[in-house]
Amino acid sequence: MSGQENNNKIIIAIDAMGGDFGPVEIIPALDLVCHGRPDIFFLIFGDQTKINTYLSKCPVLKNCSEIRHTDKIVQNDEKPSAALRNSKGTSMRLAIEAVKSGEAAAVVSAGNTGALMAMAKMVLKTAPGVHRPAIASVMPGLEKDTVMLDLGANLLVDSENLVQFALLGATFARAYKKMGNEKPSIGLLNIGSEDMKGPDHIRGAAEILSKVEFPGTYYGFVEGDDITKGTVDVIVCDGYAGNVALKTAEGVGKYIKHHINDAFTSNPFAMLGALFAYFSLRKLKRQTDPRLYNGGVFLGLNGICIKSHGGADALSFSSAVIKAVRLARAGYVEHIAQDISDLTSQETFLSSDS
Amino acid sequence: MSGQENNNKIIIAIDAMGGDFGPVEIIPALDLVCHGRPDIFFLIFGDQTKINTYLSKCPVLKNCSEIRHTDKIVQNDEKPSAALRNSKGTSMRLAIEAVKSGEAAAVVSAGNTGALMAMAKMVLKTAPGVHRPAIASVMPGLEKDTVMLDLGANLLVDSENLVQFALLGATFARAYKKMGNEKPSIGLLNIGSEDMKGPDHIRGAAEILSKVEFPGTYYGFVEGDDITKGTVDVIVCDGYAGNVALKTAEGVGKYIKHHINDAFTSNPFAMLGALFAYFSLRKLKRQTDPRLYNGGVFLGLNGICIKSHGGADALSFSSAVIKAVRLARAGYVEHIAQDISDLTSQETFLSSDS
Repeated sequence: MSGQENNNKIIIAIDAMGGDFGPVEIIPALDLVCHGRPDIFFLIFGDQTKINTYLSKCPVLKNCSEIRHTDKIVQNDEKPSAALRNSKGTSMRLAIEAVKSGEAAAVVSAGNTGALMAMAKMVLKTAPGVHRPAIASVMPGLEKDTVMLDLGANLLVDSENLVQFALLGATFARAYKKMGNEKPSIGLLNIGSEDMKGPDHIRGAAEILSKVEFPGTYYGFVEGDDITKGTVDVIVCDGYAGNVALKTAEGVGKYIKHHINDAFTSNPFAMLGALFAYFSLRKLKRQTDPRLYNGGVFLGLNGICIKSHGGADALSFSSAVIKAVRLARAGYVEHIAQDISDLTSQETFLSSDS
Repeated sequence: MSGQENNNKIIIAIDAMGGDFGPVEIIPALDLVCHGRPDIFFLIFGDQTKINTYLSKCPVLKNCSEIRHTDKIVQNDEKPSAALRNSKGTSMRLAIEAVKSGEAAAVVSAGNTGALMAMAKMVLKTAPGVHRPAIASVMPGLEKDTVMLDLGANLLVDSENLVQFALLGATFARAYKKMGNEKPSIGLLNIGSEDMKGPDHIRGAAEILSKVEFPGTYYGFVEGDDITKGTVDVIVCDGYAGNVALKTAEGVGKYIKHHINDAFTSNPFAMLGALFAYFSLRKLKRQTDPRLYNGGVFLGLNGICIKSHGGADALSFSSAVIKAVRLARAGYVEHIAQDISDLTSQETFLSSDS
């Protein structure tokens, strides 16, 4: 029953061996998620002994999880092609296969991104009508959170790819943000908002998006600062620019955090000030904590696959797992197939497909 | 004498009518710069009456500037091609012409970016050997400030363009950061640091840069978060990605600033805390103030031309002017011609020039 077993439990497959830390952070992350959520069950793939070292300290998680032992793992620095060849029986591959077989509703891994994408594509296959899967993430914004894609799966794209990303993103936003039938607004990332600006393939995508019917409303061009303004629900770009924007945002956050820490430890007055402002500073930290937004979602596959940051700690990994649960509950995979089929049946779109 | 008159004064041409505010912010900006700097002289182009309204309040600036009246201006929303056609006698064009004639050493404008680039290219001409001028800016970083280019002049580039940008950036960094004969480190902006990663044209540029001799040291690939880490002296990318990164950084800065302000005004304890930490918070503001980094420098022209942010206030515009003074003093334009000629004479570079 597509990863939803008895009592409507959501079953999530976890690659416990991926990332910089493996079970050390991943098991406590699962423990964070399952407290007070009897509707969640984890299939944990990886080295039983290592996993048990941490699982034994988590009685609640123990009751809502099952270990699937393997001692084969994908190395973080392995080339995707090599990882794919040697993938049989690895914790990553087994976790993905649990989604393929319908046992789990989603898979989460902090492992090698290229290997995960290659394996997910091979095992789960691209959804009917989708040309290229994309990686999406959710970015915090002043007005609202923004779904952004592609973040690195597709470096060079054409207009049609961008239009498909818009569709994948719109369907994702509707599911993730629980928008129901509300149409998410879509912006194309560009270097100015005027129609004449930007590279040909972006202007081409704008032309198509302003004509076709799809489960979103085309807003127009947006710029880099619109990401954190929260101008639109979904921002679409190629994987190179998206990856640059994501990492730049991460870097600026760290830069400012460094200076904030510096400021409040620089002298006794400032330290006293920090004490008075303790609760406000804690709130500030929460509002600007990138760990709460961890998790790149692979869109356009026959199954939900989420890539956590490789350096994720427990809190960070738990955010990726919560994303998986939310998407599984919303039936994202079922919606996307219908939306793609609706889009490709439109003449205006097909006429540009040359 | 190339904008350096009697007593070795640096003469800077100012388009006083550009940007969202015109003389209201631009004249006070010049006043900020000239205090204690008897070596600077301004030629101010624009509407005499409007300029005088603000200049009359600045006795120091009055003594080290001269107004060149014109009532023709370039509109902020004018198409570059139209602006170019109607450019004769505008404050922007006259200011650029002052550099061309050798009367001024540099020009600063907050006006229409596309128009300024088109006009500067037409009047000043591209430096010998340079294929495409680029826009560079300086970004604050933890380790050191980083010169970044291109920021929007060239949306689609090939390997050779990127190599030339590396050279333009290296020469700029040496002049701006007063590095003397020290070789600046150069990174190519990519989505990972491994050799196999990224689009073809970036990997192609990496191959050339690791072979040729030029006034910089090739570091390798860098990612978006290396901008604010200050990993290298110069980061090179295409104008689309550069513009996205710059605006994303701006947006994240505003997002965090909003939450900081919120945190310290949310309750009486936090406000008291802010009072204790007053000096530290002021220092923090200074360290993260993007206005101190305003000014996109057009590289690769026969003359120094600097584009200020259109919405710049006085402090922000003054940063752009200080950049102009620094580059003029360092003889940037003279260096670049020699560096380009050295580079293009190398066989490895020429062999890829097909």
